[in-house]
Amino acid sequence: MRVIVTPKATVLDPQGAAVREAMQHLGMPEVREVRIGKYLEIEVEGDAAEVEPRLHQLCRDLLSNPVIEDYQLQRSEEGAE
Amino acid sequence: MRVIVTPKATVLDPQGAAVREAMQHLGMPEVREVRIGKYLEIEVEGDAAEVEPRLHQLCRDLLSNPVIEDYQLQRSEEGAE
Repeated sequence: MRVIVTPKATVLDPQGAAVREAMQHLGMPEVREVRIGKYLEIEVEGDAAEVEPRLHQLCRDLLSNPVIEDYQLQRSEEGAE
Repeated sequence: MRVIVTPKATVLDPQGAAVREAMQHLGMPEVREVRIGKYLEIEVEGDAAEVEPRLHQLCRDLLSNPVIEDYQLQRSEEGAE
């Protein structure tokens, strides 16, 4: 499974702003905005459907800060991963 | 466009190992492995196809460390983003 944690649209992302400026100075003036989040690949034994509700809970409690971040939980294409 | 930067499979990921143990202690003993990377949403003005080669170059030079990390560059589904 994959979890993507991103800063909420209303929250400042200074790291993203720094990367945007670096990209603009390094030959990509077209860059308008960069937002940086976390990407987690989680390998779970057993049935993804059975595990998913608990994983959602952990996304809220451990992997993201719901005050300032959103998360997306995705099943990987390959069954077991 | 989206860039996902992940540690290479052969590289230790201590942050991922720490999250794996935390998840195992918080009600998900089924977790076998966690690997943590970066997720970047990059908004670019103009034609994605024209920008893409330079973005690949920046992925290698700025956004990832090719010695220890891999990156994936994906076009977002929505055209302009």
